[in-house]
Amino acid sequence: MPKEVIPMSRDDGDDGNSAYGRRTFKRSKAHFTDRITADGRDGWPVEAGRYRLVVSRACPWASRSLVSRRLLGLEDALSLAVADPIQDDRSWRFTLDEDGRDPVLGIRYLSEAYDRRETGYPGGVSVPAVVDVPSGELVTNDYQQLTLDLATEWTDLHREGAPDLYPHELRDEIDEVMADVYEDVNNGVYRAGFATEQEEYETACTGVFRRLELLADRLERQRYLVGDTITEADIRLFTTLVRFDAVYHGHFKCNRWKLTENRALWGYVRDLYQTPGFGDTVDFDHIKRHYYQVHTGINPTRVVPLGPDLSGWLTPHHREELGGRPFGDGTPPGPVRAEERVPAAHTP
Amino acid sequence: MPKEVIPMSRDDGDDGNSAYGRRTFKRSKAHFTDRITADGRDGWPVEAGRYRLVVSRACPWASRSLVSRRLLGLEDALSLAVADPIQDDRSWRFTLDEDGRDPVLGIRYLSEAYDRRETGYPGGVSVPAVVDVPSGELVTNDYQQLTLDLATEWTDLHREGAPDLYPHELRDEIDEVMADVYEDVNNGVYRAGFATEQEEYETACTGVFRRLELLADRLERQRYLVGDTITEADIRLFTTLVRFDAVYHGHFKCNRWKLTENRALWGYVRDLYQTPGFGDTVDFDHIKRHYYQVHTGINPTRVVPLGPDLSGWLTPHHREELGGRPFGDGTPPGPVRAEERVPAAHTP
Repeated sequence: MPKEVIPMSRDDGDDGNSAYGRRTFKRSKAHFTDRITADGRDGWPVEAGRYRLVVSRACPWASRSLVSRRLLGLEDALSLAVADPIQDDRSWRFTLDEDGRDPVLGIRYLSEAYDRRETGYPGGVSVPAVVDVPSGELVTNDYQQLTLDLATEWTDLHREGAPDLYPHELRDEIDEVMADVYEDVNNGVYRAGFATEQEEYETACTGVFRRLELLADRLERQRYLVGDTITEADIRLFTTLVRFDAVYHGHFKCNRWKLTENRALWGYVRDLYQTPGFGDTVDFDHIKRHYYQVHTGINPTRVVPLGPDLSGWLTPHHREELGGRPFGDGTPPGPVRAEERVPAAHTP
Repeated sequence: MPKEVIPMSRDDGDDGNSAYGRRTFKRSKAHFTDRITADGRDGWPVEAGRYRLVVSRACPWASRSLVSRRLLGLEDALSLAVADPIQDDRSWRFTLDEDGRDPVLGIRYLSEAYDRRETGYPGGVSVPAVVDVPSGELVTNDYQQLTLDLATEWTDLHREGAPDLYPHELRDEIDEVMADVYEDVNNGVYRAGFATEQEEYETACTGVFRRLELLADRLERQRYLVGDTITEADIRLFTTLVRFDAVYHGHFKCNRWKLTENRALWGYVRDLYQTPGFGDTVDFDHIKRHYYQVHTGINPTRVVPLGPDLSGWLTPHHREELGGRPFGDGTPPGPVRAEERVPAAHTP
């Protein structure tokens, strides 16, 4: 497993200029690594209704937990706060909510939950974050562990028919695939996009496409990355791929080809997109506005492109022909609850 | 015909930040509109060996004259100076030549030829430019008229078998097509790319793709834009389209789709690219480095993307099936002279 890092924070270059002065883009380490577990050994037992998941739909790291929560049917157990895709100088904020306050936590900025946990915390404020509702304190922003725990510690609260996203017998292989995907793809696109030197960019971009080609070879032969069902590995690749043509291709200069030009990957990502629990979490408007308007160091005009044409996302992918059982012995999740639906105008 | 404008000058936003403060990107008017004619009525008679064409291979406006010169076989009559794709604060320079001087004109900057023509000329220095070799004076930088004059005034010096690029009976239609292409495509991509306001960008980008779709409809049915042979209209569309996926798609945010995703246009531009006189003038390295390194207002890191993959440019286009006679009653031009060949590393 890769080391824990903080994604989408105010200080890691993802929402400003702070990373540009560095020779090489580096993610900060996560700061809050408490785990919410069935046995509550860190003081945070799994409990229905106790915690609130804070995400941005723009963020690929936070979007992993959006997908897991849907697939596992944790909507009732773990409530959801969606931050504005555009941070201000105080970072993620609840300006999409009435009066600019999260209705459950009562706070205007996610940083307030950080402050309750640790006064004067000097690090970045990042999503995903899980907040303890009674105390208003941040519990964890450890996105690498969070989805694994949703899959393996929150099992008592899973819906009937929830899939096993991290099956015991496949964990070594899943971990290995995820480590490569993390290094070269999930984080590789950021290293390419935030590079300030040509060589640094070229190394990252070359790594992105080398890995994508290896993944495409694998996915020519099998429907999912590991085994024949959807696992955590697919979730982590999906949240980067779904952003690829929309933002990484142009904004991050990962432009050797578009995903639409790669048969296996374009089929794979559409298959997942069209699977309940994946595409229904994706907000292309939040994605595009966040990347293009927040990274003024690489897009000073803050103009958001009109493209790409999204109509292809709903076209037939024919991946069923490869076999596979998306949910294993389980079933697909039901429809998205009304208050969590992504506006139709933000989708293909 | 559209009004004369100055392309690729130091002051029109094409090589710096000067245009970004303006509400809407506007090209400056051309300043030097003398014409070189068969009858020499402006004092500049057509004469073999007398003039030097100064271009940048990065520039779509200058590249029109590169194509015309090749198709018409004017290489012996009109010599060629190729400027460095990266201007400095004194604009276009001859840093690709030994000692940084053009070997024929003996100057280091194109601006020196402007200064000889008009002391203290305050306007932009642009390519294409034609310089009178004996006096060292700039004759014209009027790129809209220049290629028409190469086609119609330089006829005595055309090679045997040169095509008629501006046939009398088709001029009205050619002019009409070129006016639309100029407004929406040739210049439209610049308006999109240099927009500093969302609405201004969206208007321009929408116009680009609306026009491209109309052109694609036309080119589904016929091999060339007007009549059944290559004309000036094709040259002007080609020099924008050949840059489309490489720079306008990402850098200028004209990203609804890539040209490779549009059957008619991708076939059409490959057909021309593979026709002697078109593709052999194109230097993708100069194109990419110019746009990405010079426009620091929209690409502050000056990083040049590795993509797109260019290998498709040489694939079969099957446009012969539409009929057409590329050179009419004429013949294709011969091979490129050794000293004018684009390095293989800068081509697909």
